[in-house]
Amino acid sequence: MEVNKRILIVGAGNMATAIGTALKNCGNPPVAVWSRTEESARMLGTSIGCEWTNSLDALPPADVVIISIVDSALDDVAPLVTRRYPDAVILHTAGSVPMDSLRTAGASLYGVLYPMQTVNKNKVVPLDDVTVFIEGSTPEVTEVIRSISSRISNKVIYATSEQRCSLHVAAVFACNFPNAVYCMAAEILEQFNLPFDSMLPLIEEAARKVHKMPPSQAQTGPAKRGDINIMNMHKSMLTPELAQIYDLLSNYIMKRNK
Amino acid sequence: MEVNKRILIVGAGNMATAIGTALKNCGNPPVAVWSRTEESARMLGTSIGCEWTNSLDALPPADVVIISIVDSALDDVAPLVTRRYPDAVILHTAGSVPMDSLRTAGASLYGVLYPMQTVNKNKVVPLDDVTVFIEGSTPEVTEVIRSISSRISNKVIYATSEQRCSLHVAAVFACNFPNAVYCMAAEILEQFNLPFDSMLPLIEEAARKVHKMPPSQAQTGPAKRGDINIMNMHKSMLTPELAQIYDLLSNYIMKRNK
Repeated sequence: MEVNKRILIVGAGNMATAIGTALKNCGNPPVAVWSRTEESARMLGTSIGCEWTNSLDALPPADVVIISIVDSALDDVAPLVTRRYPDAVILHTAGSVPMDSLRTAGASLYGVLYPMQTVNKNKVVPLDDVTVFIEGSTPEVTEVIRSISSRISNKVIYATSEQRCSLHVAAVFACNFPNAVYCMAAEILEQFNLPFDSMLPLIEEAARKVHKMPPSQAQTGPAKRGDINIMNMHKSMLTPELAQIYDLLSNYIMKRNK
Repeated sequence: MEVNKRILIVGAGNMATAIGTALKNCGNPPVAVWSRTEESARMLGTSIGCEWTNSLDALPPADVVIISIVDSALDDVAPLVTRRYPDAVILHTAGSVPMDSLRTAGASLYGVLYPMQTVNKNKVVPLDDVTVFIEGSTPEVTEVIRSISSRISNKVIYATSEQRCSLHVAAVFACNFPNAVYCMAAEILEQFNLPFDSMLPLIEEAARKVHKMPPSQAQTGPAKRGDINIMNMHKSMLTPELAQIYDLLSNYIMKRNK
């Protein structure tokens, strides 16, 4: 039986809420949460059932501090945390911020715990099947992060700062851009007075298929078949902006299915 | 209690299989299936439990003939069907083919039954929650198509040939292009030795969200936030081809979130 670390959560946003809740559910609840905003700290602390405060000085002792705040606030907050907890392992949860930014902020033991999911404070997503990418400043620190991460997720993978950055780019393609093309579909349908929800079975099916085969095998559609007539007909129905996007994405598909 | 129509299925591909199976399950199985290939006809006929043949002359009488074959074969097959069944209602199931192509093929009563789903012969997708778009050459024919469609789906909507064509374009954006951007994510991750399956929770979440809110509200990511620094960093990690796609899709998102 592993001894619980005393974990502190700095931040009360979407990711802080997902991690704090997962830690509570695995039987290692944070000892406290801090947020700049008293109300946010109170909400998360109450929900997890731990101490909460908006004063760094009021925080209890901790072995590990997980800083989970917006990237732009890290430079301000991290130095305050490292000064208050010189002997703790200091972690951040940001995809695009190199681990070494925490050394710059004064940490001596530091690392990253990056759950690969888009999280939402209002609907707490369980992290069990979410891959958590970890990186530590020393092998020992990495083991501490691995031990914590393994309690909240079944999938823990070591990734360098560069790899983590590529994950963040890939996530834009896997999550933000699908939604953008859904928007375009909605725009087309609205123009012809047709309901967007007629697309939902297609959207589900496309998302479901890549659970069973690589996306390169799952591709369908006129570009996959090289059906130039249909593609030209489609483009003739689109605004110049959407026709350009149609072209670029179709070319990508055609090149890979010659 | 409605009297069953004698329905014939011409074709044994993915959509023919989905429709034939749905008709069987709703208690109005086709009287027969025809396919140019004997083996395909036999497989579908056996699976549905109805007559099957690869000879048009051997087909039994029918009230409704549903032609569900690849678009490019319609011009060849439809005239043969209309000659054999001058008094039947002749339907096709193609998104991008105007209804009137069936009049050109010699039909006097004709229309379209277009289930909005990407179907797969090897995994029969139920059509219950799939929107079926219908169009008939006369109000009476439309009612016949509506009556058949309502038995296989809860969502039946009248759509003109032009509207149906726009559905087909929208489906490319809702289904083929999401898969294309999944491919790009896989390409990026492969380059950095990271597993694509770490993206699956994101892909699911993006698909899930648009069941609850319009995609314009569901958008997240750096382009949504207007985070130029992150976007530039991302582009610096991409091939010129992917960087161009990243730019175009990000601009689309930014324009709509000013």
